[in-house]
Amino acid sequence: MSQPRRDSKWWGWGEPANVPELDAAALTTLRERIGEIEAQPRKAELGDFKLPAPAPLPQNVIDAVGGEGVFTGAEDRLRHATGCGYVDLARLRSGRLEAAPDAVVLPADADAVRRVLDACAAEGVAVVPFGGGTSVVGGVEPLRGAHSRLISLDLAALREVEVDRRSLTARLGAGLRGPEAEAELAKQGLVLGHYPQSFEYATIGGFAATRSAGQASSGYGRFDALVSSVRLIAPAGELETLETPHTAAGPALRELVIGSEGVFGIIPDVTVRVRPAPRQRRYEAWIAESFEAGAEIVRGLAQGSGLPDVMRLSDEEETEVSLALSGPRGVTGKAFNGYLGLRRRRGGCLMIVGHEGDEESVARRRALAVRELRRGGAAYLGRSAGRSWEHSRFQGPYLRDTLMEMGAMVETLETSHTWSRLGELHTAVAAAIRGSLAAQGTPGFVFSHLSHAYADGASLYFTYIARARHEAAVEQWQAVKRAASEAIVATGGTITHHHAVGRDHAPYMEAEVGQTGIDVLRAVKDQLDPTGIMNPGKLIR
Amino acid sequence: MSQPRRDSKWWGWGEPANVPELDAAALTTLRERIGEIEAQPRKAELGDFKLPAPAPLPQNVIDAVGGEGVFTGAEDRLRHATGCGYVDLARLRSGRLEAAPDAVVLPADADAVRRVLDACAAEGVAVVPFGGGTSVVGGVEPLRGAHSRLISLDLAALREVEVDRRSLTARLGAGLRGPEAEAELAKQGLVLGHYPQSFEYATIGGFAATRSAGQASSGYGRFDALVSSVRLIAPAGELETLETPHTAAGPALRELVIGSEGVFGIIPDVTVRVRPAPRQRRYEAWIAESFEAGAEIVRGLAQGSGLPDVMRLSDEEETEVSLALSGPRGVTGKAFNGYLGLRRRRGGCLMIVGHEGDEESVARRRALAVRELRRGGAAYLGRSAGRSWEHSRFQGPYLRDTLMEMGAMVETLETSHTWSRLGELHTAVAAAIRGSLAAQGTPGFVFSHLSHAYADGASLYFTYIARARHEAAVEQWQAVKRAASEAIVATGGTITHHHAVGRDHAPYMEAEVGQTGIDVLRAVKDQLDPTGIMNPGKLIR
Repeated sequence: MSQPRRDSKWWGWGEPANVPELDAAALTTLRERIGEIEAQPRKAELGDFKLPAPAPLPQNVIDAVGGEGVFTGAEDRLRHATGCGYVDLARLRSGRLEAAPDAVVLPADADAVRRVLDACAAEGVAVVPFGGGTSVVGGVEPLRGAHSRLISLDLAALREVEVDRRSLTARLGAGLRGPEAEAELAKQGLVLGHYPQSFEYATIGGFAATRSAGQASSGYGRFDALVSSVRLIAPAGELETLETPHTAAGPALRELVIGSEGVFGIIPDVTVRVRPAPRQRRYEAWIAESFEAGAEIVRGLAQGSGLPDVMRLSDEEETEVSLALSGPRGVTGKAFNGYLGLRRRRGGCLMIVGHEGDEESVARRRALAVRELRRGGAAYLGRSAGRSWEHSRFQGPYLRDTLMEMGAMVETLETSHTWSRLGELHTAVAAAIRGSLAAQGTPGFVFSHLSHAYADGASLYFTYIARARHEAAVEQWQAVKRAASEAIVATGGTITHHHAVGRDHAPYMEAEVGQTGIDVLRAVKDQLDPTGIMNPGKLIR
Repeated sequence: MSQPRRDSKWWGWGEPANVPELDAAALTTLRERIGEIEAQPRKAELGDFKLPAPAPLPQNVIDAVGGEGVFTGAEDRLRHATGCGYVDLARLRSGRLEAAPDAVVLPADADAVRRVLDACAAEGVAVVPFGGGTSVVGGVEPLRGAHSRLISLDLAALREVEVDRRSLTARLGAGLRGPEAEAELAKQGLVLGHYPQSFEYATIGGFAATRSAGQASSGYGRFDALVSSVRLIAPAGELETLETPHTAAGPALRELVIGSEGVFGIIPDVTVRVRPAPRQRRYEAWIAESFEAGAEIVRGLAQGSGLPDVMRLSDEEETEVSLALSGPRGVTGKAFNGYLGLRRRRGGCLMIVGHEGDEESVARRRALAVRELRRGGAAYLGRSAGRSWEHSRFQGPYLRDTLMEMGAMVETLETSHTWSRLGELHTAVAAAIRGSLAAQGTPGFVFSHLSHAYADGASLYFTYIARARHEAAVEQWQAVKRAASEAIVATGGTITHHHAVGRDHAPYMEAEVGQTGIDVLRAVKDQLDPTGIMNPGKLIR
């Protein structure tokens, strides 16, 4: 890795050639829901940006990484200036970007990271750690804090892979993207099993730094549960937790590094638990009678015989939208409509149920799940619908680009709560988003799914689509974000189940952990990063 | 709870009437292994202790709890002056105790805890949090640090029970002992499932503060995995984590409170995940061909179809000792000898395999375990041997009293490592203990079991028995402890898998978490406890 990567759209998500299209029926549904939309008058081009001139880096920062690891070209700076949230892409599309790193710095290894941090601490240069750049909460926003210079520290070259076959663990370099890590493990017949929607571009270091959760987290576990040990290179020292499976030696420092979002230091590599690659993946779809009935099924599984590896329940709105947007080619739609015809009723909630493993384990665990699904009144929709979901599982952000191109605002947010209060949270957040959109004259539609279930509760993932106010996209987004966040806080949910805090959720951290919690995080930061160079303005303000 | 509890031996473990006896065969085996031993010339009585006169408490500390919550009598001070490790009991038996708290303070509720900490911080009175007083690592030792006065803060009156049936969580007061918590949950058909050997006397707050692990941790999870949220009352503030099932909102502060061993503040209650009480408990015994073969079976289960709820593998030494000490009435012994006769061979390693749940789940999961056990060459020994273990699962410390009464030194210690290095750790630690005992002229025998297995490794629990050097019991113990700890550190194991750090393991914390780790813990402590009153000398020195 001798150059920062440029293999995704600078103005949107991922592979430029992957452009999903909406058919006429989908367009009709969309118009019915959010009214007429119109594309942005003119989408910005790379040359349109007027980035502030880069402040020159101190020579010892340049020396620390070696001159060939420093990039100050406009495209590299631009590509490291935002994450991939809706508001980031809206700003990129409009050509308005107020700030960018002064340079992108690409250390060749962990030793170079150490040298760069030392030089930056000595010179007062702020450092934004950069993995895949896929944050949807402003996690890589180039905020300088008290510092006049800022680098984006791109960890793409940290690509170590070291497998302990007997203990089923693997030390993985922070810069490995999801598919790269899985490809390395697959060579040894192993799998990590972490599939967030950002899988294609997000990195191992980012998964750890943000407490990521993947679509198969019910089976494989959230990323924090997959981490066996972790390293941290901080301005004031280095931390490495033991690789023993567990310990009672005091507070879990591993859990202080995981989720630290770059504000304490750099995670150069992570040791994770891996598994034999599954011989079978069986994904299928079911229809629950209602969201409540479906949630009861999921709760029964989580508290009883065990969850499938993937378990996802769309609410009524999301079920309808999935069907509408999947179009005539969408097998989900065909099977669902066939089912509805048979049953002579409308509605219901789509459930995706996925099992992975050897044939015997899949059959055994599936039988338990099927019993609970039938007991809860769900109807089997078949494997083709499940496969359809599986094959499009990373398509969400591509579809967002298509919708944004048409002039829509498309954003997601997520939270979690105990089973006792999940229904209340579902209602309150959806109402808050709808209300805020309507109040702005851009009534939208809001839908959600339950995923990442646990014995004591589950997460809710909301998506909303509305007409974008091109002239005030940021303000429009901010208003909705505020309304949704306040509803979450008022209901006692977490401000984020798996997107992390970044810049966008930092104002709600006091509601999450209290003033004492903030004080503790601040004390740890002051210890590890006494000059405050690490990712200013994120996590704790 | 208006008085500190006095329902256990002040000089030993637990219920005074529970006195296991060794029969002639067991005594012969013991003498063969460690030579002749003789009882301590005279066991101390309560009146023998010359405790330092208690320093008077500041009036506002007394006012904070209400005068009736302050106890300065000799027996209360003595009962709060040590934990229950071998070296604690050896000191109590000898009548030599250098220090005791100036008073035992018994707050009625969390508000009183808050007031007491405020007063102690204002007056510079050190505070040792006290739950069940069952620490085996010096966790409640009355170390004063820089302070001239010290109280033992007995949390026995914090007995809240608040169940969320739907989310299967329960908020439990810190002062509830294991059986008390289970009895409250049983009223609602629920179970926590946390059964450390200290279960009868240890408390919910202590389980959290020390990252306890129970005998059924393979099924129910270690205590840290059972905690959904936690509260901390610290001198400088209060912390309460959200009860949502999971969150990505930054570092896990819950994991900073768990394992904090009273050095940050007081845990007044803990919200834990509970389950429907099992309808069936099926415990059985198997014999593996060797420790290595047995460990491979456990690894196969942990990395494959899943572990039983209890999974315990004794090494050859422990297997022999278990049989010898269980005596002619011991069903394990009879079944084992019958098995050996059938097979016409000696040796093998005892495995305890326990399943809990409804009948179907037990049958299903047991079938998977049996397949792996047979595949690994283990032979079925029957249910009576399993039940025998189940019924005596909390007897270990009572037997220790019997052996100490006879003049033996009996101590345990534990660690964990990855599967790749577990064998090396097993050999190194056993050799270190044997070597240290032999070098002191008290050759002993050392045996161990593997328990608390995970996909990536397992814990090892060592017991050693030798002739006590009554005149130098503390020095004898210290030498072995040092040798064993250094062997653990040299092999890269954790200094403690589930006994915690306390005073005894604090010297090894730097090996465990590095200087930066110590600095971070110190920074958190300075933030939460700026005057350093909380449990001085524990965890971090």
